[in-house]
Amino acid sequence: MAKKYVYLFSEGNGTMRELLGGKGANLAEMTGLGLPVPQGFTVSTEACTKYYEDGRNINSEIENQIFEALAKLEKMYNKKFGDPSDPLLVSVRSGARASMPGMMDTILNLGLNDDSVEGLAKKTGNPRFAYDSYRRFIQMFSDVVMEQPKEKYEKILKEIKDSKGYTSDTELTADDLKGIVDLFKDNYKKQQGEDFPQNPHVQLLEATKAVFRSWDNPRANTYRRMHDIPYSWGTAVNIQIMVFGNKGETSGTGVAFTRNPSTGEKGLFGEYLMNAQGEDVVAGIRTPNPISKLKEQNAVLFDQFEKITQTLEKHYRDMQDMEFTIEEGKLYMLQTRNGKRTAKAALKIAVDLVSEGMIDEKTALCMIDPKQLDALLHPQFVPSELKKSDPLTSGLPASPGAACGQIVFTAERACELKQQNKKAKLILVRRETSPEDIEGMNVCEGVLTASGGMTSHAAVVARGMGTCCVSGCHAITNIDEEGKFMDIADKKLKEGDWISLDGATGLVYDKQIPTEPASLTGDFKTVMDWADKYRTLKIRTNSDTPKDTAQAVKFGAEGIGLTRTEHMFFDADRIMPMREMIVSKTVDERKKALAKLLPMQKADFKGIYEALEGRPATIRFLDPPLHEFVPHDDDDIRDLAKEMNLPFEELKHTIEGLHEFNPMMGHRGCRLAVTYPEIAEMQTTAVIEAAIEVNREKGWNIVPEIMIPLVGDVNELKYVKAIVVETANKIIEREKVNLKYLIGTMIEIPRAALTADEIATEAQFFSFGTNDLTQMTFGFSRDDAGKFLNDYYTKKIFESDPFARIDEKGVGQLVQIAVEKGKSVRPDIKLGICGEHGGDPATIEFCHKVGLNYVSCSPFRVPIARLAAAQAAIKNPKKTK
Amino acid sequence: MAKKYVYLFSEGNGTMRELLGGKGANLAEMTGLGLPVPQGFTVSTEACTKYYEDGRNINSEIENQIFEALAKLEKMYNKKFGDPSDPLLVSVRSGARASMPGMMDTILNLGLNDDSVEGLAKKTGNPRFAYDSYRRFIQMFSDVVMEQPKEKYEKILKEIKDSKGYTSDTELTADDLKGIVDLFKDNYKKQQGEDFPQNPHVQLLEATKAVFRSWDNPRANTYRRMHDIPYSWGTAVNIQIMVFGNKGETSGTGVAFTRNPSTGEKGLFGEYLMNAQGEDVVAGIRTPNPISKLKEQNAVLFDQFEKITQTLEKHYRDMQDMEFTIEEGKLYMLQTRNGKRTAKAALKIAVDLVSEGMIDEKTALCMIDPKQLDALLHPQFVPSELKKSDPLTSGLPASPGAACGQIVFTAERACELKQQNKKAKLILVRRETSPEDIEGMNVCEGVLTASGGMTSHAAVVARGMGTCCVSGCHAITNIDEEGKFMDIADKKLKEGDWISLDGATGLVYDKQIPTEPASLTGDFKTVMDWADKYRTLKIRTNSDTPKDTAQAVKFGAEGIGLTRTEHMFFDADRIMPMREMIVSKTVDERKKALAKLLPMQKADFKGIYEALEGRPATIRFLDPPLHEFVPHDDDDIRDLAKEMNLPFEELKHTIEGLHEFNPMMGHRGCRLAVTYPEIAEMQTTAVIEAAIEVNREKGWNIVPEIMIPLVGDVNELKYVKAIVVETANKIIEREKVNLKYLIGTMIEIPRAALTADEIATEAQFFSFGTNDLTQMTFGFSRDDAGKFLNDYYTKKIFESDPFARIDEKGVGQLVQIAVEKGKSVRPDIKLGICGEHGGDPATIEFCHKVGLNYVSCSPFRVPIARLAAAQAAIKNPKKTK
Repeated sequence: MAKKYVYLFSEGNGTMRELLGGKGANLAEMTGLGLPVPQGFTVSTEACTKYYEDGRNINSEIENQIFEALAKLEKMYNKKFGDPSDPLLVSVRSGARASMPGMMDTILNLGLNDDSVEGLAKKTGNPRFAYDSYRRFIQMFSDVVMEQPKEKYEKILKEIKDSKGYTSDTELTADDLKGIVDLFKDNYKKQQGEDFPQNPHVQLLEATKAVFRSWDNPRANTYRRMHDIPYSWGTAVNIQIMVFGNKGETSGTGVAFTRNPSTGEKGLFGEYLMNAQGEDVVAGIRTPNPISKLKEQNAVLFDQFEKITQTLEKHYRDMQDMEFTIEEGKLYMLQTRNGKRTAKAALKIAVDLVSEGMIDEKTALCMIDPKQLDALLHPQFVPSELKKSDPLTSGLPASPGAACGQIVFTAERACELKQQNKKAKLILVRRETSPEDIEGMNVCEGVLTASGGMTSHAAVVARGMGTCCVSGCHAITNIDEEGKFMDIADKKLKEGDWISLDGATGLVYDKQIPTEPASLTGDFKTVMDWADKYRTLKIRTNSDTPKDTAQAVKFGAEGIGLTRTEHMFFDADRIMPMREMIVSKTVDERKKALAKLLPMQKADFKGIYEALEGRPATIRFLDPPLHEFVPHDDDDIRDLAKEMNLPFEELKHTIEGLHEFNPMMGHRGCRLAVTYPEIAEMQTTAVIEAAIEVNREKGWNIVPEIMIPLVGDVNELKYVKAIVVETANKIIEREKVNLKYLIGTMIEIPRAALTADEIATEAQFFSFGTNDLTQMTFGFSRDDAGKFLNDYYTKKIFESDPFARIDEKGVGQLVQIAVEKGKSVRPDIKLGICGEHGGDPATIEFCHKVGLNYVSCSPFRVPIARLAAAQAAIKNPKKTK
Repeated sequence: MAKKYVYLFSEGNGTMRELLGGKGANLAEMTGLGLPVPQGFTVSTEACTKYYEDGRNINSEIENQIFEALAKLEKMYNKKFGDPSDPLLVSVRSGARASMPGMMDTILNLGLNDDSVEGLAKKTGNPRFAYDSYRRFIQMFSDVVMEQPKEKYEKILKEIKDSKGYTSDTELTADDLKGIVDLFKDNYKKQQGEDFPQNPHVQLLEATKAVFRSWDNPRANTYRRMHDIPYSWGTAVNIQIMVFGNKGETSGTGVAFTRNPSTGEKGLFGEYLMNAQGEDVVAGIRTPNPISKLKEQNAVLFDQFEKITQTLEKHYRDMQDMEFTIEEGKLYMLQTRNGKRTAKAALKIAVDLVSEGMIDEKTALCMIDPKQLDALLHPQFVPSELKKSDPLTSGLPASPGAACGQIVFTAERACELKQQNKKAKLILVRRETSPEDIEGMNVCEGVLTASGGMTSHAAVVARGMGTCCVSGCHAITNIDEEGKFMDIADKKLKEGDWISLDGATGLVYDKQIPTEPASLTGDFKTVMDWADKYRTLKIRTNSDTPKDTAQAVKFGAEGIGLTRTEHMFFDADRIMPMREMIVSKTVDERKKALAKLLPMQKADFKGIYEALEGRPATIRFLDPPLHEFVPHDDDDIRDLAKEMNLPFEELKHTIEGLHEFNPMMGHRGCRLAVTYPEIAEMQTTAVIEAAIEVNREKGWNIVPEIMIPLVGDVNELKYVKAIVVETANKIIEREKVNLKYLIGTMIEIPRAALTADEIATEAQFFSFGTNDLTQMTFGFSRDDAGKFLNDYYTKKIFESDPFARIDEKGVGQLVQIAVEKGKSVRPDIKLGICGEHGGDPATIEFCHKVGLNYVSCSPFRVPIARLAAAQAAIKNPKKTK
């Protein structure tokens, strides 16, 4: 039997989303429920896939099935497609498995031509209606099917209206519209080089192809990448008989939600317009009525509609977003789907549906998009103020939240101004940030960079800090640090000027827009409590400071999965001893410099332990190459030489000696501890002494977890571990305490994953450093990949950013290998992930499935991770430990 | 039963090398053959391992076993250790599984003390002999066991001789020697802080420990790393009863070979000294006699010895290197082993042994160390001239061969001088070379660099070219390109000065030493023919020029495994269009520049195809990041801007835009073709048109193999392949020929190996790029790793350089994964290796075992690879394809 590519609505049902798309499946489901749905059929997503396989061509089999279904429709309604006396007219709509903006939307009134328009006019006795429908069809077909510029058509319409002195479309007469149709057809021919297609079959095939084609347009591709929707899914096409909301004052059209999509409040919410077609509601030329008005206008119909909406909500057990049309007093349902909603509404609806007994907690948890919660966790612009503001320009939405402050161009200046005035609100504007800017970033409300992508230094650090960041703002054409101004979108902004950033949209405003702090409602707490009940993954946080740690604990973190000890060394009061350490020529000199760092590092760890209130912390030893801590241009080196009392030439030589061709793969991580065991000694001393002191002061029982980074061979770990153990045990003995501690490693080098069975003999825990693991596995330098990854997206080599969502096939395979090998020699090995992927819901599900014990993410991602972990546990019940 | 750690010679045999070491196993074997061997026992290699496990301590169990064996020895010879009337004396010698210089060698006369020396004097009636033995023992014990400076002892000896007016040691009387013994003991106490040990048991344990300890000294570790000897093997200790060659004129000692170790000629070869102990032969104070002289002196003994040597050679079926001692007219065999030999001798001996019917061809092949052949493949200094020359300094032996030429400090200058005088012999001296120097390197006889290791750019490129190179010559403290001179080892050498480099030793001579070209003897050919008979791996070469290709074909290459198409673009006449291509702003501009490169590239390929005479060639498309092709300092950019008629600022901006943080993981390989498909189009055109033209001209049937580099995801390959196929098929159609071609990929990104099943659906062949694969798998930047890898060796984290010998555990695991996954979807996929590892015998064996079809290596490694492949096939017979 030939493959079935086309399904009548009566042949499908709501479970067939994959094949029929969301819209198609729901139309079939509503048909099954006996609701008043204009009938039609769906060309399946498989037909779309076939279209691409066949070189963007609809093969004859699919074509035949389409026309067979059409014939059934003709029979059902006893009308003929293209009939000059009483034509069957259809709408054509796209409908992917997931609702997806960016694709072709809708073509109405298809089937009209110069003959059938007359039939329609006669049949309805309403030539104005018929020609209005025809001109709309030509306009839509030209625009969405043929991709002609729509301005031309709007111009024609406007010229006619102007010449007649009309202010509204409704004033156009049938003759006016007839004239417009002629002008439209002329323009079509001019644009297209051929006549507007009169054959309705050609119209239908062209429209179907246009839907398929739109699956692959750049906007759709971008949307898919952002939302992890596979290209391979394809879209379906829904062909449905027309009902008309524009047949006069007893006709109309509207959209409605069963609950308020902004607040989640229960009750019908929506708007409608009488004597209108779909696009009129959206176009904003006429102001629609609130749905409640319908009750006054037509109580019977309103009741019927309300009952249907309640039926649908109960049927789908979720808030519904519906489109309807009233044709000459008769109600038709054109679409229903689970409605999109704000984060706040998502929480309220989930909680309400549970208390209404409609769904259980697990279902409620799975209804909420974890990523959406982000919006509730950061300061936001006061909505009313935002509404009044026009953005100056935009960049990439690199780290969410809203920030408003005065411009400053260097990190040092930011620190200086903050010291002068603790209440100063500052925005740091840089070409790109570097590790030396961290302290400055920390005192600012937000960060704006001219270059760099979503994974640039600024973006990564800002997300870690929970600081708002807009990166890659190319409208900044010049930053003059000395002159303290920048050129941005043809304006000159100087230090002290107010600027506002929206980290969620990337928009930049050259004015002050007040912000309000995040407020977590009771629903939020309820949902988080449910999540904790069902998840099996622990959630830890990546945090380097007591402040971030406290924030994460507030958000529900159960410990720290990654403390980067180097971030502490960039502080102004530490960088000098760090530099002394680096330029040391002997072990003694180095130890002397390290001795200066020890009390500071110990104090850091004590602060973090205190903020954790007894929760565990994994502390990673020094990781970055040493050249990140020293200046590189001659003037700065000269200053430093003076400060350190060293000859300039000597210091320059030392610094040049630190240069590396590929620092990512250079002298860093455990390689530093191999060369300079003194560093590991100092850090061990700081960790162990801090734990002992806090345990003593608080009566807690902290078990420090020391993590050796960048291990690729068990011998590296063995060597560094020996130093740690010797140092730690000496202190424990001296202090006469009974302190347990763990030693583990990051798995971030492919070889570590491949030889994890060897490494696990020495490591008590593994933490997957998926940032570096992704870099090495792909051979992509994260700092450089931005240059070519865009080509990868446009050429469909990659569908998603491997630095945002874990690449399960490659990187994930290594994680899986490491998990299996690690457990084979140490069944109780503790396994976690601390790369940036740790906050990504899809990655969290992967981590759950693969059997990790915890994920660690930045503080502001903790609630997201809690929810995602619960969803993973619910969706994969058998994999629960 | 307790573990047996100590074996009498009569308890062992020649097969027990692993346990007893080479020397111990052979002493046992000779004992079994009934040869006159002074008896003794061997402390096993397992005892050595235990010693290290126990924290460098000989445990009581081993100690007991040693003294039990000693007791048996005492019984056998009816003497007592330390007996004041007739003491048992022993020698203590190290003996690892493989012969290994760098470790402790020998202690003689152990067991002497102030009492037993008197016993020895009385028993032998020769107090001079007794005290001479005692002072030698103290001297050796102090030096090799206690690691005291030996100069002190030599000074004492010299002072006594001087004070007495003696010119030779033999003039020392018994009383003189007695006095020397006292002075030696005084000095020992001063150095050691305690008396010279009088207890022979203490002497024996200390000496045994010293042997074990010497397994871990830096020289031994370095030697092991160079020769791939695992640290875990450990060494055995041989304790053997003393026989004395210094008991007067009927005593003596010597070494002999059954064949000449330099030439391979059959016949006893060696030397001896009467009235001497072992070290006298080596010390060079007295001139030893040729072994033939022994026949004159003592025909009976000579006959006995000659017979023994023949017995041993027949028994071991290999040339033997033997030590013997004559004690008062009685012959003793102290050691036999397969003798070390020159490459030339190795070939001759192997061929001779086969024609003598002693061994078969397979055994002969396995007797030859493939690495040794290298010495026969490059020009060498005329030996007589070399003997007369003292080196000025040394660097790392980065690429073998000998070179003599006039100094030049820049690649451009080298090209210039070569153009002026085709016969000029030049040596390029650089701080470190860069890709722009390649043409200059190519016209020079040799390359000397001040920095950079064995895997620096200069070293890698020179080895590829077969050009002699000494790298990392730190004695070069300054190179002044403008002034055209350098400071090297306190001398100033200027352009035009003659210098000679030995790439095999790293020695640098500041004079002219004539060289002679490599000459392959008939034996070489015979051995290569045998190798070809037994090997199943094909041997290809890495070559970018017709000249190198011709050389490789002469050496037996069966095709090209890797042509790096970018090397061609560094030539002076190509770099300009290449740069035009790089700075192009539009596709059209880029195509215009590429069009200039096309005829050149096509001519390259034609030349290579012609040199291959119909053999296959794998051509890799453009790989390095584009910034390697442009200048980076302002002056050069200014020059280029002028030349290109571009504003300086614009060009600088373009060039800065190419900068990458980690170029190794940046915009290179197939990523370039994704961004600039035009490059792949041009290169495809060049490859295909060249093949068609050469096929037409020669009537050959070349099947071009196009290799897409740096693929990490099948979609990358798919994308680039589509371009190649479209371009190629268009040409084939246009030319109306029937040309087949293959498209494959490098597997050099970990992810490619992990997803090889997907990639193999598109790739017709895989070539393992183990250089990059090693970099990514370890996360080691080859350009930077030199800085820390030394610490890895000294701290025993690594035993060998993963860039020289494939890391089987990690990188090899990925190769294996890729082989299995690749074959699972394409059983006939062609598999090869083209990294530098391709010339390493251990790696070749791995490639054989893992099922590759071919290895590809630099031209000068081809004969080595042929032999290594034969050995792999012989050693692993079942794994044959």
